[in-house]
Amino acid sequence: MTGHKLNLSMLCDFYEFTMANGYMKAGYKDRIVYFDVFFRDVPDKGGFAIAAGLDQLIDYILDLHFTDEDIEYLRGKELFDEDFLEYLRNFHFTGDIWAIPEGTPIFPREPVLTVRAPAMEAQLIETYTLLAINHQSLIATKASRIVRAAQGRAVLEFGSRRAQGADGAVLGARAAYIGGCKGTACTISEELFGVPATGTMAHAWVQMFDTEYEAFRTYCETYPHNATLLVDTYNTLKSGVPNAIRAFNEALRPLGITQCGIRLDSGDMAYLTRKARKMLDDAGWPECKISISNSLDEYIIQDLMLQNADIDAFGVGERMITARSEPVFGGVYKLTAVEDQEGKIVPKIKVSENVDKITNPHFKKIYRLYDNETGKALADYLCVHDEVVDDSKPLEIFDARATWKRKELTNYTARNLQEPVFEKGKLVYKRPTLQEIQDYCKAQLDTLWEEVKRFDNPHTYYVDLSHNLWELKQRLLRENM
Amino acid sequence: MTGHKLNLSMLCDFYEFTMANGYMKAGYKDRIVYFDVFFRDVPDKGGFAIAAGLDQLIDYILDLHFTDEDIEYLRGKELFDEDFLEYLRNFHFTGDIWAIPEGTPIFPREPVLTVRAPAMEAQLIETYTLLAINHQSLIATKASRIVRAAQGRAVLEFGSRRAQGADGAVLGARAAYIGGCKGTACTISEELFGVPATGTMAHAWVQMFDTEYEAFRTYCETYPHNATLLVDTYNTLKSGVPNAIRAFNEALRPLGITQCGIRLDSGDMAYLTRKARKMLDDAGWPECKISISNSLDEYIIQDLMLQNADIDAFGVGERMITARSEPVFGGVYKLTAVEDQEGKIVPKIKVSENVDKITNPHFKKIYRLYDNETGKALADYLCVHDEVVDDSKPLEIFDARATWKRKELTNYTARNLQEPVFEKGKLVYKRPTLQEIQDYCKAQLDTLWEEVKRFDNPHTYYVDLSHNLWELKQRLLRENM
Repeated sequence: MTGHKLNLSMLCDFYEFTMANGYMKAGYKDRIVYFDVFFRDVPDKGGFAIAAGLDQLIDYILDLHFTDEDIEYLRGKELFDEDFLEYLRNFHFTGDIWAIPEGTPIFPREPVLTVRAPAMEAQLIETYTLLAINHQSLIATKASRIVRAAQGRAVLEFGSRRAQGADGAVLGARAAYIGGCKGTACTISEELFGVPATGTMAHAWVQMFDTEYEAFRTYCETYPHNATLLVDTYNTLKSGVPNAIRAFNEALRPLGITQCGIRLDSGDMAYLTRKARKMLDDAGWPECKISISNSLDEYIIQDLMLQNADIDAFGVGERMITARSEPVFGGVYKLTAVEDQEGKIVPKIKVSENVDKITNPHFKKIYRLYDNETGKALADYLCVHDEVVDDSKPLEIFDARATWKRKELTNYTARNLQEPVFEKGKLVYKRPTLQEIQDYCKAQLDTLWEEVKRFDNPHTYYVDLSHNLWELKQRLLRENM
Repeated sequence: MTGHKLNLSMLCDFYEFTMANGYMKAGYKDRIVYFDVFFRDVPDKGGFAIAAGLDQLIDYILDLHFTDEDIEYLRGKELFDEDFLEYLRNFHFTGDIWAIPEGTPIFPREPVLTVRAPAMEAQLIETYTLLAINHQSLIATKASRIVRAAQGRAVLEFGSRRAQGADGAVLGARAAYIGGCKGTACTISEELFGVPATGTMAHAWVQMFDTEYEAFRTYCETYPHNATLLVDTYNTLKSGVPNAIRAFNEALRPLGITQCGIRLDSGDMAYLTRKARKMLDDAGWPECKISISNSLDEYIIQDLMLQNADIDAFGVGERMITARSEPVFGGVYKLTAVEDQEGKIVPKIKVSENVDKITNPHFKKIYRLYDNETGKALADYLCVHDEVVDDSKPLEIFDARATWKRKELTNYTARNLQEPVFEKGKLVYKRPTLQEIQDYCKAQLDTLWEEVKRFDNPHTYYVDLSHNLWELKQRLLRENM
């Protein structure tokens, strides 16, 4: 936003303040608690999601503070004690955070992020922590689907104007890049994050000139090395493509330029792109790229590929930047343990009549198990924080919902998925570049079986519990029912 | 975002820069153009949308600028001329903007906003203009539906954690308030905009104490005048409500406090709320309010009302803050006219094979026609900018798609819907307070017939064209086909 200085520390559900003040009053100020961020369902019924948003969460944690104006505003609510308001004046994060790195494929019910901190701090960071992870994981996950549908052809993010607010556009472009997009139309996302920004013309450019040809030729003369012409303002095949060819012939051919492009934004893309391809090839422009950009998503792209549309790049707008088919990523933040006065960790569980909503208790560790022969991920393995998987030894895993289904793993590698991000309030994480995150995401996707990557009805990838954790969970359930 | 200074002037599709530079090079620097912002379809197949986002657009226009870093970044793209980069250094808006005020019910294909400006300026403000109007109109429209479903019961916005970025949360809460919400959980939206922020406790509060009763009693003692207890952590009817009643009896009764509340976040709300209501009434807590908050939207609320659920307030999260059922508001920005060198306005049209996508050409004016007898809105009337509707005289209107359907209006009032916002770059609009916008929205909704407000298959409200405009459009269509 502009005109206002946005202190994200105040982007906080009001109940976090009432609870924090209440904890202080109840003598729980220094009580250490553990929270997990996890999600229950993959958007669009997909097989996995892509973790994203950690980098913005780090910025937020580093910047945590309350200004005099914030405290004055809170005082005006006439709910808070003065010692709480004084506490806020010096507020910063002193706890620990572990997180699964951005770009990692993630699965339901595993801790994407774990917080260990005094109760008040853990509570006050809940809202933005969820917002940061939920938003970018949503878009990275959707982008990954769309990029996979394009089978190696370039996907560009074009959705800023339909995004849900400025951060929706700017960070959405960032998340889409993590998910595999080649670039964005959103200029500031290149300036801030290095997402390559691209773009040439809108219909208004064509309308501004007396003729379409004049508009095209002027554009080619202005940007001979970046001439992608929008050919559907009047009639794509009768006027747009012929005028583009004429402009290329007259403005680019004499310069020896063979690289150029056309873009279609309406009409039947399978038919039009095949026709346009032939016209371009016949006119001696085989290197001219064809891009399209009208209400695309993974299903439409998949269909166009099946129909042999002749397309080199897809510009994807509103359906990616809002994840239109499922615009909510349902990450939650649940208490998993508290430390008693002797520092002993007491696991907590949230029961529910809905079995899927029962939480996995305790301070935990999450491993990904890879088959050494294929390099593929076999399962994730959730255990109590002090358990260690020694991958030189066999490991028995079992399905927590069908415990008789057991399997012994040998010749595997166990990788601890969470990395330390903050230790006692200090950033200890080496933040990767956005390019490194995109590359890592691509490499991690290669460790998933194709069956897990199907759009519809994908194979279930298991997040198994260790024996210890499973038994602890059963005990807590018995005690709490 | 934090950690970065976000200059929204750079939140701009890259093609705006290539076009602006190209206009300059083509000698069109001072060419005056007209753009309309309009939308084609009401989200969720509703009868109308609610305009919102103008206030943030004004902030943006007032703040328009490019920093040295922005210009340096653009220079690095090796596409732009030095005189263009120099132009950006002193860039500000010098044009005119007219807009339909926030809170107004708006209809497809009418100009929500009109820009008259030099081509380069009009182009460079396109992306954020659309983003601002699209985002908040989307949420205000969705909120209005949800608020209408609640039939006067309070609706509170609870969705920050699932919003698509920080602005999605903060401005989403603002837009939801315009649409009729009574408050928000998003603290900063009160601090910045005065949207009342509310909240008491999450499940973590209950889990933090040894017993549910202890958690409730401590809360009531801490906030005797703000005690809304979350009763579904363990078992709503067997433990939650009885423990709440016990805490109210012991902590509030002695203070003579009769106002309190419970909140349910899971289970069958129709059944549970009726049961809880009876338990509270029987225990002498008839003023205790019941609020609920689990994945609500207008359809679920409507169903709960039909089933006589006993609910006083609805906390609505992800389905409102992301407008989940249709998370895209499709506002577009289309060229409608250019001025020639003598200052004559030359209308422009964008043709399309899809009849719905043909634009309404020219610099226009939009009237809303109200019946003097009922006070109800009859139709909107789109005409050329210099036409004047004299509502002391009869007016013949007709259906532009079925021109034989004609109607003569008498005893009506014509109101010019757009107000001047910027004149020659200067803000001339008196910005209403958020409360004034909410009140105005409510009053304007009362001017719509109930048939237009139905959720499904609403009666079509017409946006008619004047004879002049209709004839102009036909002529341009003939010339451009």
